[in-house]
Amino acid sequence: MKNLPITELRCSLCGRSFEPVPFMYTCPDCGNDGILEVLYDYEKASALLQPEKLRANALPGLGKWAPILPIKDPESLPPLRVGQTPFYSVKRLGEAIGYENLFVKDDGQNPTGSLKDRASAVCAASAKEMGIELITAASTGNAASSLSGMCASMGLKTVIFVPERAPKAKVAQLLMFGATVLSVRGTYDDAFDLSLKATELFGWYNRNTGFNPYLLEGKKTAALEIWENCGYKAPDYVAVSVGDGCIIGGLGKGFKDLLRMGFIEKMPKLIGVQARGSSVLAKAFANGDKVIAEPDADTYADSISVGLPRAASLALRGVHESEGRFVVVEDEEIQKAQAILAAKAGVFAEPAGATPIAGLIKARRENLIPAQAKVAALVTGNGLKDVDGALKALQTQAISIDRNPDTLQKTLKELLSL
Amino acid sequence: MKNLPITELRCSLCGRSFEPVPFMYTCPDCGNDGILEVLYDYEKASALLQPEKLRANALPGLGKWAPILPIKDPESLPPLRVGQTPFYSVKRLGEAIGYENLFVKDDGQNPTGSLKDRASAVCAASAKEMGIELITAASTGNAASSLSGMCASMGLKTVIFVPERAPKAKVAQLLMFGATVLSVRGTYDDAFDLSLKATELFGWYNRNTGFNPYLLEGKKTAALEIWENCGYKAPDYVAVSVGDGCIIGGLGKGFKDLLRMGFIEKMPKLIGVQARGSSVLAKAFANGDKVIAEPDADTYADSISVGLPRAASLALRGVHESEGRFVVVEDEEIQKAQAILAAKAGVFAEPAGATPIAGLIKARRENLIPAQAKVAALVTGNGLKDVDGALKALQTQAISIDRNPDTLQKTLKELLSL
Repeated sequence: MKNLPITELRCSLCGRSFEPVPFMYTCPDCGNDGILEVLYDYEKASALLQPEKLRANALPGLGKWAPILPIKDPESLPPLRVGQTPFYSVKRLGEAIGYENLFVKDDGQNPTGSLKDRASAVCAASAKEMGIELITAASTGNAASSLSGMCASMGLKTVIFVPERAPKAKVAQLLMFGATVLSVRGTYDDAFDLSLKATELFGWYNRNTGFNPYLLEGKKTAALEIWENCGYKAPDYVAVSVGDGCIIGGLGKGFKDLLRMGFIEKMPKLIGVQARGSSVLAKAFANGDKVIAEPDADTYADSISVGLPRAASLALRGVHESEGRFVVVEDEEIQKAQAILAAKAGVFAEPAGATPIAGLIKARRENLIPAQAKVAALVTGNGLKDVDGALKALQTQAISIDRNPDTLQKTLKELLSL
Repeated sequence: MKNLPITELRCSLCGRSFEPVPFMYTCPDCGNDGILEVLYDYEKASALLQPEKLRANALPGLGKWAPILPIKDPESLPPLRVGQTPFYSVKRLGEAIGYENLFVKDDGQNPTGSLKDRASAVCAASAKEMGIELITAASTGNAASSLSGMCASMGLKTVIFVPERAPKAKVAQLLMFGATVLSVRGTYDDAFDLSLKATELFGWYNRNTGFNPYLLEGKKTAALEIWENCGYKAPDYVAVSVGDGCIIGGLGKGFKDLLRMGFIEKMPKLIGVQARGSSVLAKAFANGDKVIAEPDADTYADSISVGLPRAASLALRGVHESEGRFVVVEDEEIQKAQAILAAKAGVFAEPAGATPIAGLIKARRENLIPAQAKVAALVTGNGLKDVDGALKALQTQAISIDRNPDTLQKTLKELLSL
């Protein structure tokens, strides 16, 4: 780990500090819940990441953030274009839902279609620097396809544990990227446990969310880019969907790092949006941070359907430290948000990707956010990831017409009120 | 049309020249086959597009090419990030298929997941400048979702004609973007004819491929970017899949424009790759350019399954002028190419997007392209567009394992030869 910019790994539960060593994932005292926070020499980083230097920095993707990433060399990152996702001023969407300064950061435009590429890229780069050739994970979702894609581009092997019920289409993407897919005759939790066991047994590297501390370091780059996209300033609010909490935790870490480097004076308020049927963290936030797992959690927004949030402490901390809040929305509100985001901004998001928009709509209705505030909504996944989800969300239908050209004028005049 | 950089519209069949006027799609003498070529003041454009100026040009997306686009103002383009797609040096893929200098241009990374966004963006921008508020098209594929997405981001209306058999998932994307979808009780050709009829009747603007001359101008930007990505030089070969011929026609136009401006000395050889079951243009090329429609044309590479190629003359011209050629591949070869592209480069392409790789594999095997040549393969669509296609292309399967952690070591040792 020589020459890494990391100065220490600090347990997010007990606060104990550790020297960075390979294969250290969680705090030995606190067990798997003790996710380690990665800290850097922020004074040195601040000198290297001054806005004028960033403007002139031609490094593509995440490489420019190397002074506060757990990698030695930006060249270790995958060759794919990760990050640098578009940041759109969405006036017509803003008008429709009551915001005067609304922006959308479209992380569905990452190589495999989700924000998880940021985490997988940093994870794969750090693995490569440690001489590791195989990375494992348990997932059927964006994390696994992202890891497989990144590793494919770098020539690293991946072994993915999936529960036997995993949808064929999602498994297909993993197999396409050349991953070895192990279909566990059991639940997701069985798959998760087996992946940890295999990590131990074979000395593999593990990319499980809420376990490997370097993943958060990848996710935080979304916050760094939002700061950059806003002209090296923080917006007033950043809204994002919340499932296991690792993305909002990553945003919290990113803005905290900017605070530590003196680039912002306060963090933007983080608005964590959960679906009613999967709202463990929103309940915990309202309840003195007491996290109570809900094994039956369910929402049509697949990517945030989580009953046992694995990054709970980081997520809650990010929202508290930013003086943000949680908003809980119904599945129907997410469906409407998906449609309005596509129709008014041209951004087709997966259900979880449109969830922050649902939260913002509700927040305006309840006057939780002022109309004039500068608000960024982070879209975390591409709508093409879940076309079945889009089918459910549709608010309109195709209109059946006859093929006779002679009656076309009459037909269309009636149908379209021309 | 005042202040447009266009100097003339020239019929690609009879060569007759026209002043640019609104709503002129095809040559009045030659009918719908007489696609018009859009020409510019290349001397003036050459001065504006010198490499040193392009390097310093901060305009996002397609805007930088405005001097040779049919628009007055780059600001008219949609706000989405169209173009500027990644250009990857893919060494491991090259080694696997026998090329020493292989590059992949991933146009699946456009906002709606396909190269068609380039054409739709230019079409929508030119419509906006003409004061048009509604664009129509007949399509169930990438062209329609692209048009709907671009128009949604700009507040323009779209009316899309689809045959009643159109897949629900594809129609869902159109509806999400707020398009009015007319499901014609008839075939694709009925839908196409009705869209032309509606264009006439209601004065709508038409985005049908191989009809509206400004679409080709959008597609040509892929060629301009390849030149830019190669350090303002043309590669030796550019390989792309061919269906109705409009994309390879666009590449031909782009490189021809670069030739006209004196930026390249010769065009790269265009390699048009068709699937065996849908190879009208390859047959025509081998047969004195005699195009014979094949109504039963069929390939699993959905986006290039075309029996009546609507941009035949432009496609054939591009291949002839570049001294390129056609290569015909089997569906199984496309499936293998899709898998190898994903596994060796981390690029998940739809079947038509991986087709140029299949063509390149065959071209090496038959020694049609030297191993040392600098070759760019253009991936035209994202794999997430057609996950069913990916399922068919899989060369491997998931491995079923027991959930018992105590037997994991033994199981994996046997299965993975650890």
